[in-house]
Amino acid sequence: MTDTAAGHFITLEGGEGTGKSTLAKALARKLEAHGIGVVVTREPGGTPLAEAARQLLLHPPEGEAWSPLSEALLVNAARRDHLEKLIRPALARGDWVICDRFADSTRVYQSIEGGVDVSALLSIEREVLGDTVPSMTLILDVSLDVASKRRTARAGALDTFERRPKAFHEAVRAAFQDIARSEPARCRLIDTDVTPDQVLDAAWKQVATLLQNARTAAP
Amino acid sequence: MTDTAAGHFITLEGGEGTGKSTLAKALARKLEAHGIGVVVTREPGGTPLAEAARQLLLHPPEGEAWSPLSEALLVNAARRDHLEKLIRPALARGDWVICDRFADSTRVYQSIEGGVDVSALLSIEREVLGDTVPSMTLILDVSLDVASKRRTARAGALDTFERRPKAFHEAVRAAFQDIARSEPARCRLIDTDVTPDQVLDAAWKQVATLLQNARTAAP
Ligand SMILES: Nc1ncnc2c1ncn2[C@@H]1O[C@H](COP(=O)(O)OP(=O)(O)O)[C@@H](O)[C@H]1O
Ligand SMILES: Nc1ncnc2c1ncn2[C@@H]1O[C@H](COP(=O)(O)OP(=O)(O)O)[C@@H](O)[C@H]1O
Ligand SMILES: [Mg+2]
Ligand SMILES: [Mg+2]
Repeated sequence: MTDTAAGHFITLEGGEGTGKSTLAKALARKLEAHGIGVVVTREPGGTPLAEAARQLLLHPPEGEAWSPLSEALLVNAARRDHLEKLIRPALARGDWVICDRFADSTRVYQSIEGGVDVSALLSIEREVLGDTVPSMTLILDVSLDVASKRRTARAGALDTFERRPKAFHEAVRAAFQDIARSEPARCRLIDTDVTPDQVLDAAWKQVATLLQNARTAAP
Repeated sequence: MTDTAAGHFITLEGGEGTGKSTLAKALARKLEAHGIGVVVTREPGGTPLAEAARQLLLHPPEGEAWSPLSEALLVNAARRDHLEKLIRPALARGDWVICDRFADSTRVYQSIEGGVDVSALLSIEREVLGDTVPSMTLILDVSLDVASKRRTARAGALDTFERRPKAFHEAVRAAFQDIARSEPARCRLIDTDVTPDQVLDAAWKQVATLLQNARTAAP
């Protein structure tokens, strides 16, 4: 795949209830309005094998629990399938890909649960991603109270990740903020304690810079 | 776990039809006759979560196939669960563990399928195993013709791994021989083109050296 033909890969990261899934849809509509083909996907999941791995991860047999390292390996097995079969082909044909959670979520959740060497996690990540690193990562950030209200308001049962104590959600938020700070070239921190339209505007200000580059690069 | 209290971890490796499962059972009976507690297990699998991962690995949804790197990650996720929940607890209480296939199988099969960096595989292996490295690995070796006849004679449907062309089985045999050559302190090559009793005798000659050490170490 060549740079000029390839679409952009945008990942949305942040804790549960920060507004990732809401923004993913709105951003896709806006890009499509600009004539861009968009694939919206999520992790873990996005392909049949990755969704099967997701099931195993989120719903282990009764009484069983994955340890942090097993979890990280299983998520990365799913990620590799997702990259090879959905993300890379989409980018290669010029579509943009918006992915609801990606590698930063693995870094954050597995390192918080502890027991996994961070450098081992990063070396697995590097091997799995190869050169398919996100063009831009929007890290959605909001106070724990707001995120918690949004989670309870949202329909559907709370899954394993959502049923955690407050200290867990605090650690998640801080870890995402750290990633935003430590990789400013790739990451943008987006405050989502505003209306969905305002979140989209803030996100669009960032994403539009990729559009500029894409246009400039065209003949 | 202390060295004196800990049991020994023995892995059996080699291509399909070389006689691993047959030897695992015979070796366990012989160790038990010496008053040793033995746990016989296999990979991928051995615990509920690892067996669930095995199902996903060996029986992917219709029309789907795992890529080599995804396969390696999935196997290692299962391995970590197996180590934490079955192998290490058994060794810690002084039992010996006989495992039918282990990390060498991942090295061999994933590197033969290609597309996975060997040093990445080894670094994942190191992280997953920690200090639970096998005391001894018996690598079973037999000509392709004999192994093939044994596979077809054996009851049950041939799985994905067994339905491969001859060149594949040749590469597998050579790769296992390479491991035996390159890690002589841990590995013993056992010729299995003899009767099951003779295979057991040859294996026992090796395994009995661990028993000597265990006895010498006792107060
Ligand atoms: N900016 C926002 N203001 C108010 N509510 C929001 C906002 N963004 C999302 N929501 C609502 O909050 C809940 C969680 O949003 P969602 O996009 O599902 O978050 P996430 O995918 O990050 O868990 C949903 O009910 C959604 O409609
Ligand atoms: N030494 C041997 N001589 C003859 N047949 C054997 C021998 N070892 C195993 N077999 C038979 O060959 C088949 C494959 O053996 P098995 O132990 O299942 O191999 P593996 O587990 O390595 O695939 C079985 O039917 C088994 O009974
Ligand atoms: Mg969501
Ligand atoms: Mg067998």
